[in-house]
Amino acid sequence: MGKVGNVIVGQSGGPTSVINSSLAGVFAMAKKLGCEKVYGMRHGIQGLLDDWIIDMSEYVKNDMDIELLKRTPSSYLGSCRFKLPAVEKGNESFEKIFQILMKYDIKFFFYIGGNDSMDTISKLQDYGKTIGSDIRFMGVPKTIDNDLALTDHTPGFGSVAKYVSTMMKEVILDSAVYCRQKIVTVVEVMGRNAGWLTGATALAKGEDCEGVDLIYLPELPFSVEKCIEDTEKLFKEKDSVVIAISEGVTDANGESISAAVANSSKVDAFGHKALTGTGHFLAEEIGRRLGCKTRPIELSSLQRCGSHMASATDIEEAFQVGGAAVKAALEGKSGYMVILKRLSTDPYKCVTDIKDIHEIANVEKKVPREWINEEGNGVTQEFVDYCRPLIQGEVLPVMINGLPLHIVLPKDV
Amino acid sequence: MGKVGNVIVGQSGGPTSVINSSLAGVFAMAKKLGCEKVYGMRHGIQGLLDDWIIDMSEYVKNDMDIELLKRTPSSYLGSCRFKLPAVEKGNESFEKIFQILMKYDIKFFFYIGGNDSMDTISKLQDYGKTIGSDIRFMGVPKTIDNDLALTDHTPGFGSVAKYVSTMMKEVILDSAVYCRQKIVTVVEVMGRNAGWLTGATALAKGEDCEGVDLIYLPELPFSVEKCIEDTEKLFKEKDSVVIAISEGVTDANGESISAAVANSSKVDAFGHKALTGTGHFLAEEIGRRLGCKTRPIELSSLQRCGSHMASATDIEEAFQVGGAAVKAALEGKSGYMVILKRLSTDPYKCVTDIKDIHEIANVEKKVPREWINEEGNGVTQEFVDYCRPLIQGEVLPVMINGLPLHIVLPKDV
Repeated sequence: MGKVGNVIVGQSGGPTSVINSSLAGVFAMAKKLGCEKVYGMRHGIQGLLDDWIIDMSEYVKNDMDIELLKRTPSSYLGSCRFKLPAVEKGNESFEKIFQILMKYDIKFFFYIGGNDSMDTISKLQDYGKTIGSDIRFMGVPKTIDNDLALTDHTPGFGSVAKYVSTMMKEVILDSAVYCRQKIVTVVEVMGRNAGWLTGATALAKGEDCEGVDLIYLPELPFSVEKCIEDTEKLFKEKDSVVIAISEGVTDANGESISAAVANSSKVDAFGHKALTGTGHFLAEEIGRRLGCKTRPIELSSLQRCGSHMASATDIEEAFQVGGAAVKAALEGKSGYMVILKRLSTDPYKCVTDIKDIHEIANVEKKVPREWINEEGNGVTQEFVDYCRPLIQGEVLPVMINGLPLHIVLPKDV
Repeated sequence: MGKVGNVIVGQSGGPTSVINSSLAGVFAMAKKLGCEKVYGMRHGIQGLLDDWIIDMSEYVKNDMDIELLKRTPSSYLGSCRFKLPAVEKGNESFEKIFQILMKYDIKFFFYIGGNDSMDTISKLQDYGKTIGSDIRFMGVPKTIDNDLALTDHTPGFGSVAKYVSTMMKEVILDSAVYCRQKIVTVVEVMGRNAGWLTGATALAKGEDCEGVDLIYLPELPFSVEKCIEDTEKLFKEKDSVVIAISEGVTDANGESISAAVANSSKVDAFGHKALTGTGHFLAEEIGRRLGCKTRPIELSSLQRCGSHMASATDIEEAFQVGGAAVKAALEGKSGYMVILKRLSTDPYKCVTDIKDIHEIANVEKKVPREWINEEGNGVTQEFVDYCRPLIQGEVLPVMINGLPLHIVLPKDV
C-alpha cells in the first residue's frame, strides 16, 4: 500500500466548547484512514508562518486523550485572528506557508473555524491552484454564532444554546424570589450581528418555566423606548421581568444603544463607554425610567467555554464534521467546507455534506425575519423547533477531585 | 400515639443552589417523624405576616418531588429580606406572627437562611419566652458566603465553590488561546465582606491547570497599585493573567476601589458609578495603565443559582441539616441553629450538631489572615484543603428535552 499522506490541522477564531471535538474528529479519522503524520499548527496560520508545529501523536496518545479532547473547551492548539492578504502569485505570506507545508510533506490541510477561517481556506485553495500544488484544503465549521452560510447550523452553537437556556432557567428562578418588588433582569448574550444565541434563550420556556419575557436580536433596530413600553406592559401582570438582549443590538441609525442613549441624555461618558455594555446600559436606563430594581447579567466568555453544560448532540456533530472533512479530502476533494444537512427535525436526523468554500467564506447568515415575532421582542415557535434538537443530550465532563478534567498541551510546546 | 404537632418552614435571604435541598430535608424528616402538617411560608416572615401560607403536601407529593426539590435552585417558597424589630412585649409584628402560628396550631418553626435569618429565629425564640409560648424555633443554615459562625461551613458554599472553580478552569483555558498578546482577565466573585468564594477559585489549580494567578479577598485592604505591580511581574513569564477579585474589596480607607480610583484620577463618573462594578473598574484601570487587552467577567447571580454544577456533598449536607433541625426540635430543642462539625478532612467526615442561636446571629465569619498568603494576593494550601472536600461529587439535574427540570409552585399559589 502506498503512502496516504501527512495531515496538518489548525484552529482559528474564538474558542468554543466543542472546537476540540472537531480537532479530535480530524485526528481520529486521519489516524484511522492511515495518514502517516497528523501535525497541529500552534495558534493557527500565525503559528504556521513561524513553523510552530507539533506532531499531535506525541500529545494525544490514546482513546482516553481523544475522549478528553472532545470534552475540553477552548482551542487545544491555540487560536489566532489572522487574515491572509488577497491571493497574488509571489506573495510572501503564501510562499512561506507553502514552503512550510512542503517541508512537512503535507498532503491534507484542515482549518477549523468560522467565517474568517473559511476565508483562509478559500485563499489557500486559490493560491495553491496558481502554483499547481496538490495539497488539499478543507474547512471544518465551528462558531457559537451559528452564522455560517449553507450549513443547517454550526458546531458550537448547540452547546451555547444549551448553556444560555439552562442559565436563563436558573436566572428566572433566582429573579423571582422576592415578592412585591418590581425587578428587571437584563441578560446580555453574545452575538454582534446575528441573534441566534440570544434567540436560543427562548428554549428556557417549558412546563416548569414561564420563559424569558422579552428577547431582542440584532437583526432588528432596537429602541430603548419600545423596550421600556414592553416592560411596563409586562409589569401589569408580573413583578419580575427577564430580558435577553444581544450585545450587538443597534438603534435605527445603526448606533450602539449605549452610545445612542449617552448622546441623547447628554451623559458625559468619559472613560466609561468601553465599560458599559449593552446589558448594563439598558438595565440602568430601565431602572432610571421605571424606578424599579434592575440587575444586569453579562454571560460573557463563560457562555462559549461552558463545556460542563455542552450538548451531546453538538459534541458528536463537531466530531463528525472533523472526520467528514478528512474523508472528503482523502477522496480527492479540496476547497470545500463540511456542512450539516438536516434531513428531519422530529425525529432529528442530520448528515454531513460538503459545499464549495467560496460560497461560504465571508457570508453571514442571520436569523430570518419570519423567525422573529411581529413585535420584534421574541422569536417564533419555528425558531424554537429549529434549535431544540441541537441541545439534546449531556456529556458529563470526566470529574477529578470535584472538577472537570481537561487535556492541555505542556507549557513549553 | 399522641399528636406530634404541625410544622412551619420558611426560606429567607439570597437564593442558593441548595437551599431547597434543606427545605426538602425539613419536609421529608417532618413527614417521617409523623408531624401532621408541614406548612410553608411564602416569602418567609413577610408572607407569614400576611397569612400567606401553603400546605406543602399539596405540592410536594412524592419522592420524585423531593428529589427535584433537592436539585432545584433558588427559593421554592420564595424569599424575603425582612428584619424583625427588637424584642418587646406587645410589639405588633410579634403578636401577629404568634397569632398566625397559633391559628395553624404550629409546634415547630424552621427558618432556612443566613445571618439575618438567624437574627429572626433568635428574636422569635426570645419573644416566645416572654409570652410563655411552647413553639420551638430552629435555624437551618444556608448561605453561599460561608460566613456563619460556629459551623465548619455553610450549605450553599460548596456548590458555589465548585461552580466558580469550574468556571475559572474554563475561563483560564479561554483566555490563553491567542499568543503574543498580553491579556488580563478580571473575574469578579460574590462576597461583600467575606472572601470565602473568591478564595475558592484557588481550587482550579491542578495538573491540567495553572490556576488563577492573583486572588484578592475583601479581608485585606486592596491596592490598585499593588495589583498592577503583581500583574506586571507575572507578565514577565506569561501572556495571560487571570485575576479573581471579590466584589467587596475596599482600599485602605474602606472605600470601594471604583470610587477611590474615580476620585484619584478625577474621572467624572456621573451616572456611571452604579454601573461600574469592582471587576469592570479594575479591568479598565489595568488596561489603561499597562496598555494590554483586558476582559472583565462578572460571575453575577449565575454563581448562586448554578445548580447544574452543584456539589453532591453540599446537596446532601443541605438535606441533612434540614432533617437534623427537625429531629432536634422534636427532641425538645429550641433557639438553636444546626451546624456542621468536621471530624476529619482526609477522609472527609462531617456530622451535624446544634449551637445556641444567640451565639450565631449577626456574627460574620471571615477568612482568617493565616489562610491568606503573605503577599495578600492568594490563599494558602490550608484554605484549599479546607474547601476541597466540599466540592466533591456531582448530581446531574433531571434533564428533560435538553434542559434541567425544576419543581416550582403554581403561579397562583
